[in-house]
Amino acid sequence: HAPMAAAAQGEASTGTTAATFRRVYETLKAELLRDDSFDFNDDALRWIDMLDYNVLGGKLNRGLAVVESYKLLKAGSEPSEEEEFLACILGWGIEWLQAYFLILDDIMDNSQTRRGKPCWYRLPKVGLIAINDGLVLRSQISRIFKRYFHGKPYYVDLLDLFNEVDFKTTSGELLDQITTSEGQKDLSKYTVDVYRRIVEYKTAYYSFYLPVGCALLLSGGSLDDYVQVKHILVEMGIYFQIQDDYLDCFGDPEVMGKIGTDIEDFKCSWLFVQALVRVDERQKDILFENYGKSDPACVAKVKALYKELNLEAVFSEYEREIYEKLISDIEAQPNEAVQAVLKSFLHKIYRRMK
Amino acid sequence: HAPMAAAAQGEASTGTTAATFRRVYETLKAELLRDDSFDFNDDALRWIDMLDYNVLGGKLNRGLAVVESYKLLKAGSEPSEEEEFLACILGWGIEWLQAYFLILDDIMDNSQTRRGKPCWYRLPKVGLIAINDGLVLRSQISRIFKRYFHGKPYYVDLLDLFNEVDFKTTSGELLDQITTSEGQKDLSKYTVDVYRRIVEYKTAYYSFYLPVGCALLLSGGSLDDYVQVKHILVEMGIYFQIQDDYLDCFGDPEVMGKIGTDIEDFKCSWLFVQALVRVDERQKDILFENYGKSDPACVAKVKALYKELNLEAVFSEYEREIYEKLISDIEAQPNEAVQAVLKSFLHKIYRRMK
Repeated sequence: HAPMAAAAQGEASTGTTAATFRRVYETLKAELLRDDSFDFNDDALRWIDMLDYNVLGGKLNRGLAVVESYKLLKAGSEPSEEEEFLACILGWGIEWLQAYFLILDDIMDNSQTRRGKPCWYRLPKVGLIAINDGLVLRSQISRIFKRYFHGKPYYVDLLDLFNEVDFKTTSGELLDQITTSEGQKDLSKYTVDVYRRIVEYKTAYYSFYLPVGCALLLSGGSLDDYVQVKHILVEMGIYFQIQDDYLDCFGDPEVMGKIGTDIEDFKCSWLFVQALVRVDERQKDILFENYGKSDPACVAKVKALYKELNLEAVFSEYEREIYEKLISDIEAQPNEAVQAVLKSFLHKIYRRMK
Repeated sequence: HAPMAAAAQGEASTGTTAATFRRVYETLKAELLRDDSFDFNDDALRWIDMLDYNVLGGKLNRGLAVVESYKLLKAGSEPSEEEEFLACILGWGIEWLQAYFLILDDIMDNSQTRRGKPCWYRLPKVGLIAINDGLVLRSQISRIFKRYFHGKPYYVDLLDLFNEVDFKTTSGELLDQITTSEGQKDLSKYTVDVYRRIVEYKTAYYSFYLPVGCALLLSGGSLDDYVQVKHILVEMGIYFQIQDDYLDCFGDPEVMGKIGTDIEDFKCSWLFVQALVRVDERQKDILFENYGKSDPACVAKVKALYKELNLEAVFSEYEREIYEKLISDIEAQPNEAVQAVLKSFLHKIYRRMK
């Protein structure tokens, strides 16, 4: 029964982490409200409700991953309360960063809902003020980090890390926006190469590399010593997004809790770019004529073509290969604690159904 | 003829500075396009035209002020080419920051034109992609600074300075947005106190404190030693915005090159908040009934009321008093080079007509 006991213990430990993590949020929020760099009046104080609305409500996976990675890097020795607290703060930094990206992406994509609620900018009292709320969230990260990490030996590296990831993410979003804008006129712009680029920059760095980068800095590491770790995490991030695209079409809506609309939304999806390198002339006409239309008959024709092209098998093969490659790259890592961190990430996503 | 000679020399020197400053822009732009942190494809490279559109085209006052302040702080000894180059880079950092604020403010305010051209988001090929372009500009500042200042003793202070000013500016914009939103239902929300707060945070820090803060850091100073200088510059920034509000209504459109619309636009203007503390019941009704309407007859009634309340004299009195106070505070500064910097700022704006 050893594996089950370990699993149960893992869950209990995750539960504790989640509760601690959540408490740290309340501390950070309270401190932001009495930040002496800005003289809040009552209206401004009330507005800060936007924090709860936008920063909370997700699964907190990225933030919790910092704490979990940090514990694995300490390899058995329990972190002090102070150390765990700091890991939580870095985790919230990522959650704040994600909230900033999502608020603004939702406006650009004209989205309706996010995390089961209306998008923030869709609330009548908010509208385009949401743009500035996004900027406020981004600049609050710097305030939080300055308060807790100013004077630490890794403070500069931490600011550089967040700045670099912010740069990569917004550059990836730029590429996504112009590709989608061009793609609506000419779908052949959606190539395997451009897909990979968009996903690498827009998602992989902040979702996979950033949590581990934070944990490495906190445990005294220098990021320059972990270039391979970065590559592995970015590759995992790309794999994660490919799963997302696959599940959007072939996942079980009951399990996922949502119905995919990538075909209707003209998305530069992994399925589309894989289809495009496999179609003959007849199939290409079907694909181009029916992609990006909300008519269910058009969507059905695209899905039928994906099946005809055996994209389910293509995905399974990709998943098998990338898993093997990742495991082999991970096991080539000299540091066992780092291996444990990377495997923990991989096993959270391998063959996921939602 | 000494003063005239000095003025001519000053102009020549400003001319040289402006030409050098402009050349540094081309260097920075070229480097951003080959930043190895992001793998640009041709479409993305072309898109970076947005830099010329958004960063150039203004008067570059804030950026040039870094170079001029730095030269004054060196008090006579000519800066090396390298030092001047670094001052220019800090100046461009502020211009990039301003471009980021303006792109996003224009979307939130539904503005039509900026610097004599359509606002960036108004271009058909752009639209709401402009939001992400703003974020890209912000994150490029960090890339530029990392390249040139990483390893310098003041690198952390520089990042902290920009982060703090970003935080204050977006917080000020938050206050402005919610005040204007509330104000449209209840104009009594526009008070002298809230006006001062908005202007201090939204404009004064980045426009007046930031250029001098950059010059101080570059010349080896610690910003903690210049708290009074900060207060003086923030006060000057508030004065600058009050002039802006005054000129919007009472300035000569021929001289200004534009026609003010603060009354039509429901702005929380200095004139409005000053009127509100001086009106009787009858005048208050006129003010509330006619403010924020595009009908020229309504605008004329508000302007007539401003004249009836003698706001032109109120402004002149304010300008006289603040000038005296600023001069006296400046002359209390122990460092003569710092005094020269502050006086140079003050004399650029005192009694300006545009």
